[in-house]
Amino acid sequence: MTSPLDPMIAARLKRTPDGLVCAVAQQRGTGEVLMVAWMDDEALHRTLTTRRGTYYSRSRQQLWVKGETSGHTQYVHEVRLDCDGDTLLLVVDQAGAACHTGDRTCFDATLLLADESDTDDVAAGGSDAADQATPV
Amino acid sequence: MTSPLDPMIAARLKRTPDGLVCAVAQQRGTGEVLMVAWMDDEALHRTLTTRRGTYYSRSRQQLWVKGETSGHTQYVHEVRLDCDGDTLLLVVDQAGAACHTGDRTCFDATLLLADESDTDDVAAGGSDAADQATPV
Repeated sequence: MTSPLDPMIAARLKRTPDGLVCAVAQQRGTGEVLMVAWMDDEALHRTLTTRRGTYYSRSRQQLWVKGETSGHTQYVHEVRLDCDGDTLLLVVDQAGAACHTGDRTCFDATLLLADESDTDDVAAGGSDAADQATPV
Repeated sequence: MTSPLDPMIAARLKRTPDGLVCAVAQQRGTGEVLMVAWMDDEALHRTLTTRRGTYYSRSRQQLWVKGETSGHTQYVHEVRLDCDGDTLLLVVDQAGAACHTGDRTCFDATLLLADESDTDDVAAGGSDAADQATPV
Protein backbone atom coordinates (compact mmCIF):
# COMPACT_ATOMS: atom_id res chain seq x y z
CA MET A 1 0.00 0.00 0.00
CA THR A 2 1.33 3.42 -0.86
CA SER A 3 0.85 5.95 1.88
CA PRO A 4 -0.17 9.51 1.05
CA LEU A 5 2.67 10.72 3.29
CA ASP A 6 4.42 13.74 1.78
CA PRO A 7 7.05 12.20 -0.53
CA MET A 8 9.62 14.75 0.65
CA ILE A 9 9.20 13.48 4.18
CA ALA A 10 8.98 9.83 3.15
CA ALA A 11 12.32 10.18 1.36
CA ARG A 12 14.00 11.22 4.58
CA LEU A 13 12.87 8.28 6.69
CA LYS A 14 15.26 5.46 7.46
CA ARG A 15 12.94 2.58 8.27
CA THR A 16 13.47 -0.80 9.91
CA PRO A 17 13.24 -3.81 7.60
CA ASP A 18 9.53 -3.94 8.44
CA GLY A 19 9.03 -0.32 7.41
CA LEU A 20 8.87 1.41 10.77
CA VAL A 21 10.45 4.34 12.56
CA CYS A 22 10.67 4.76 16.31
CA ALA A 23 8.50 7.47 17.90
CA VAL A 24 9.07 9.06 21.31
CA ALA A 25 6.12 10.93 22.82
CA GLN A 26 6.94 13.72 25.25
CA GLN A 27 4.53 15.81 27.30
CA ARG A 28 4.58 19.45 26.29
CA GLY A 29 5.66 21.74 29.10
CA THR A 30 6.75 19.19 31.66
CA GLY A 31 9.06 17.31 29.28
CA GLU A 32 8.01 13.91 30.65
CA VAL A 33 8.88 11.08 28.28
CA LEU A 34 5.53 9.31 28.11
CA MET A 35 6.05 6.31 25.84
CA VAL A 36 7.96 4.96 22.87
CA ALA A 37 6.13 3.27 20.01
CA TRP A 38 6.43 2.73 16.26
CA MET A 39 5.06 4.38 13.14
CA ASP A 40 4.80 3.35 9.54
CA ASP A 41 4.36 5.96 6.81
CA GLU A 42 0.58 5.90 7.13
CA ALA A 43 0.69 6.40 10.92
CA LEU A 44 3.02 9.36 10.47
CA HIS A 45 0.83 10.80 7.72
CA ARG A 46 -2.26 10.56 9.93
CA THR A 47 -0.40 12.03 12.91
CA LEU A 48 0.78 14.99 10.85
CA THR A 49 -2.58 15.67 9.27
CA THR A 50 -4.91 15.04 12.23
CA ARG A 51 -2.62 15.97 15.17
CA ARG A 52 -3.83 12.81 16.93
CA GLY A 53 -0.99 10.51 17.97
CA THR A 54 -1.31 7.48 15.67
CA TYR A 55 1.03 4.49 15.76
CA TYR A 56 1.58 1.08 14.23
CA SER A 57 1.19 -1.94 16.48
CA ARG A 58 3.82 -4.56 15.68
CA SER A 59 1.96 -7.23 17.64
CA ARG A 60 -1.45 -6.54 16.09
CA GLN A 61 0.02 -5.42 12.76
CA GLN A 62 -2.37 -2.52 12.46
CA LEU A 63 -2.63 1.20 13.02
CA TRP A 64 -3.92 2.47 16.32
CA VAL A 65 -4.97 5.91 17.38
CA LYS A 66 -3.68 6.50 20.90
CA GLY A 67 -6.62 6.76 23.28
CA GLU A 68 -9.20 5.60 20.74
CA THR A 69 -10.59 3.08 23.23
CA SER A 70 -9.23 4.42 26.55
CA GLY A 71 -9.91 8.09 25.91
CA HIS A 72 -6.27 8.80 26.77
CA THR A 73 -5.60 10.65 23.56
CA GLN A 74 -2.55 12.60 22.50
CA TYR A 75 -2.89 16.00 20.89
CA VAL A 76 0.25 16.49 18.83
CA HIS A 77 1.81 19.93 18.98
CA GLU A 78 5.08 19.24 17.27
CA VAL A 79 6.82 16.45 15.35
CA ARG A 80 10.58 16.35 14.84
CA LEU A 81 12.79 13.92 12.94
CA ASP A 82 16.21 13.01 14.26
CA CYS A 83 19.55 13.43 12.51
CA ASP A 84 19.62 10.00 10.92
CA GLY A 85 15.96 9.81 10.01
CA ASP A 86 14.97 6.77 12.05
CA THR A 87 13.33 8.36 15.11
CA LEU A 88 10.53 10.86 15.60
CA LEU A 89 9.93 13.06 18.62
CA LEU A 90 6.33 14.05 19.25
CA VAL A 91 5.56 16.88 21.66
CA VAL A 92 2.03 16.18 22.84
CA ASP A 93 -0.67 16.94 25.32
CA GLN A 94 -1.45 13.57 26.88
CA ALA A 95 -4.93 13.14 28.30
CA GLY A 96 -4.73 11.00 31.43
CA ALA A 97 -2.42 8.03 31.57
CA ALA A 98 -0.07 7.37 28.67
CA CYS A 99 0.64 3.83 29.83
CA HIS A 100 -1.79 0.93 29.39
CA THR A 101 -1.09 0.02 33.04
CA GLY A 102 -2.70 3.26 34.17
CA ASP A 103 0.58 4.92 35.01
CA ARG A 104 1.14 8.41 33.73
CA THR A 105 4.17 7.27 31.72
CA CYS A 106 5.44 3.88 30.59
CA PHE A 107 8.63 4.54 32.56
CA ASP A 108 7.08 5.14 35.98
CA ALA A 109 7.14 1.61 37.34
CA THR A 110 10.65 0.25 37.07
CA LEU A 111 13.78 2.03 38.20
CA LEU A 112 16.96 0.11 37.31
CA LEU A 113 19.42 2.75 38.50
CA ALA A 114 18.56 5.47 41.00
CA ASP A 115 19.90 8.95 41.24
CA GLU A 116 22.83 9.01 43.64
CA SER A 117 21.14 11.73 45.64
CA ASP A 118 18.33 9.31 46.46
CA THR A 119 18.61 6.99 49.38
CA ASP A 120 15.78 4.70 48.31
CA ASP A 121 16.46 1.18 47.17
CA VAL A 122 16.64 0.41 43.51
CA ALA A 123 14.42 -2.20 41.93
CA ALA A 124 17.29 -4.43 40.89
CA GLY A 125 15.35 -6.63 38.60
CA GLY A 126 12.63 -8.06 40.72
CA SER A 127 10.33 -5.43 42.06
CA ASP A 128 8.83 -2.27 40.77
CA ALA A 129 9.61 1.08 42.25
CA ALA A 130 6.79 3.41 41.42
CA ASP A 131 6.79 4.81 44.92
CA GLN A 132 10.44 5.66 44.61
CA ALA A 133 9.99 7.66 41.46
CA THR A 134 12.06 10.79 41.31
CA PRO A 135 11.23 13.81 39.20
CA VAL A 136 13.25 14.44 36.09
CA MET B 1 28.99 -13.97 24.84
CA THR B 2 27.25 -13.93 28.18
CA SER B 3 27.00 -10.49 29.70
CA PRO B 4 27.50 -9.97 33.43
CA LEU B 5 24.26 -7.97 33.46
CA ASP B 6 22.23 -8.71 36.60
CA PRO B 7 20.16 -11.80 35.63
CA MET B 8 17.09 -10.31 37.32
CA ILE B 9 17.30 -7.34 34.98
CA ALA B 10 18.25 -9.43 31.95
CA ALA B 11 15.14 -11.55 32.49
CA ARG B 12 12.92 -8.48 32.18
CA LEU B 13 14.27 -7.26 28.85
CA LYS B 14 12.32 -7.83 25.67
CA ARG B 15 14.96 -7.59 22.98
CA THR B 16 14.82 -7.22 19.21
CA PRO B 17 15.81 -10.29 17.18
CA ASP B 18 19.37 -8.93 17.24
CA GLY B 19 19.37 -8.66 21.02
CA LEU B 20 18.84 -4.96 21.53
CA VAL B 21 16.60 -2.63 23.47
CA CYS B 22 15.87 0.98 22.58
CA ALA B 23 17.37 3.69 24.83
CA VAL B 24 16.14 7.27 25.09
CA ALA B 25 18.53 9.77 26.68
CA GLN B 26 16.98 12.78 28.36
CA GLN B 27 18.76 15.75 29.91
CA ARG B 28 18.23 15.96 33.65
CA GLY B 29 16.47 19.12 34.72
CA THR B 30 15.51 20.52 31.33
CA GLY B 31 13.84 17.32 30.11
CA GLU B 32 15.27 17.71 26.61
CA VAL B 33 15.16 14.46 24.66
CA LEU B 34 18.76 14.28 23.46
CA MET B 35 19.03 11.14 21.36
CA VAL B 36 17.73 7.62 20.86
CA ALA B 37 20.12 4.71 20.47
CA TRP B 38 20.36 0.99 21.19
CA MET B 39 21.81 -1.17 23.93
CA ASP B 40 22.66 -4.83 24.23
CA ASP B 41 22.99 -6.48 27.64
CA GLU B 42 26.64 -5.54 27.92
CA ALA B 43 26.01 -1.89 27.10
CA LEU B 44 23.30 -1.76 29.74
CA HIS B 45 25.53 -3.50 32.27
CA ARG B 46 28.33 -1.00 31.68
CA THR B 47 25.92 1.93 31.82
CA LEU B 48 24.51 0.75 35.14
CA THR B 49 27.89 0.04 36.69
CA THR B 50 29.90 3.01 35.37
CA ARG B 51 27.17 5.68 34.99
CA ARG B 52 28.67 6.52 31.59
CA GLY B 53 26.15 6.27 28.75
CA THR B 54 27.24 3.24 26.73
CA TYR B 55 25.45 1.97 23.64
CA TYR B 56 25.63 -0.63 20.90
CA SER B 57 26.25 0.59 17.38
CA ARG B 58 24.20 -1.41 14.89
CA SER B 59 26.24 -0.13 11.96
CA ARG B 60 29.64 -0.78 13.51
CA GLN B 61 28.40 -3.79 15.51
CA GLN B 62 30.30 -2.76 18.60
CA LEU B 63 29.87 -1.01 21.92
CA TRP B 64 30.54 2.69 22.15
CA VAL B 65 30.87 4.95 25.12
CA LYS B 66 29.11 8.20 24.34
CA GLY B 67 31.66 10.99 24.11
CA GLU B 68 34.67 8.69 24.19
CA THR B 69 36.17 10.44 21.18
CA SER B 70 34.22 13.73 21.15
CA GLY B 71 34.34 14.41 24.87
CA HIS B 72 30.56 14.83 24.81
CA THR B 73 29.97 12.31 27.55
CA GLN B 74 26.79 11.44 29.36
CA TYR B 75 26.76 11.07 33.12
CA VAL B 76 23.83 8.77 33.90
CA HIS B 77 21.72 9.75 36.89
CA GLU B 78 18.84 7.38 36.43
CA VAL B 79 17.83 4.41 34.27
CA ARG B 80 14.22 3.28 33.91
CA LEU B 81 12.67 0.38 32.01
CA ASP B 82 9.33 0.74 30.31
CA CYS B 83 6.19 -1.31 30.92
CA ASP B 84 6.87 -3.89 28.23
CA GLY B 85 10.60 -4.18 28.80
CA ASP B 86 11.83 -3.08 25.39
CA THR B 87 12.81 0.53 26.03
CA LEU B 88 15.08 2.27 28.52
CA LEU B 89 14.94 5.88 29.64
CA LEU B 90 18.23 7.39 30.77
CA VAL B 91 18.24 10.65 32.69
CA VAL B 92 21.66 12.13 32.05
CA ASP B 93 23.88 15.13 32.24
CA GLN B 94 25.03 15.65 28.67
CA ALA B 95 28.36 17.42 28.21
CA GLY B 96 28.15 19.63 25.13
CA ALA B 97 26.35 18.43 22.02
CA ALA B 98 24.51 15.12 22.11
CA CYS B 99 24.28 14.97 18.32
CA HIS B 100 27.18 14.06 16.06
CA THR B 101 26.21 17.05 13.88
CA GLY B 102 27.13 19.39 16.73
CA ASP B 103 23.52 20.16 17.59
CA ARG B 104 22.55 19.99 21.22
CA THR B 105 20.01 17.23 20.49
CA CYS B 106 19.46 14.89 17.55
CA PHE B 107 16.00 16.43 17.12
CA ASP B 108 17.01 20.06 16.72
CA ALA B 109 17.37 20.20 12.97
CA THR B 110 14.19 18.93 11.37
CA LEU B 111 10.71 20.03 12.28
CA LEU B 112 8.03 18.08 10.41
CA LEU B 113 5.03 19.61 12.18
CA ALA B 114 5.14 22.94 13.98
CA ASP B 115 3.22 24.05 17.01
CA GLU B 116 0.06 25.83 15.89
CA SER B 117 1.01 28.82 17.98
CA ASP B 118 4.07 29.33 15.78
CA THR B 119 3.86 31.28 12.58
CA ASP B 120 7.13 29.98 11.15
CA ASP B 121 7.19 27.70 8.16
CA VAL B 122 7.55 23.99 8.63
CA ALA B 123 10.36 22.07 7.01
CA ALA B 124 8.04 19.91 4.94
CA GLY B 125 10.58 17.38 3.93
CA GLY B 126 13.23 19.32 2.14
CA SER B 127 14.86 21.83 4.39
CA ASP B 128 15.96 21.90 7.98
CA ALA B 129 14.45 24.20 10.52
CA ALA B 130 16.93 24.63 13.34
CA ASP B 131 16.29 28.34 13.45
CA GLN B 132 12.61 27.73 13.90
CA ALA B 133 13.07 25.53 16.92
CA THR B 134 10.54 26.03 19.65
CA PRO B 135 11.14 25.16 23.27
CA VAL B 136 9.49 22.10 24.69
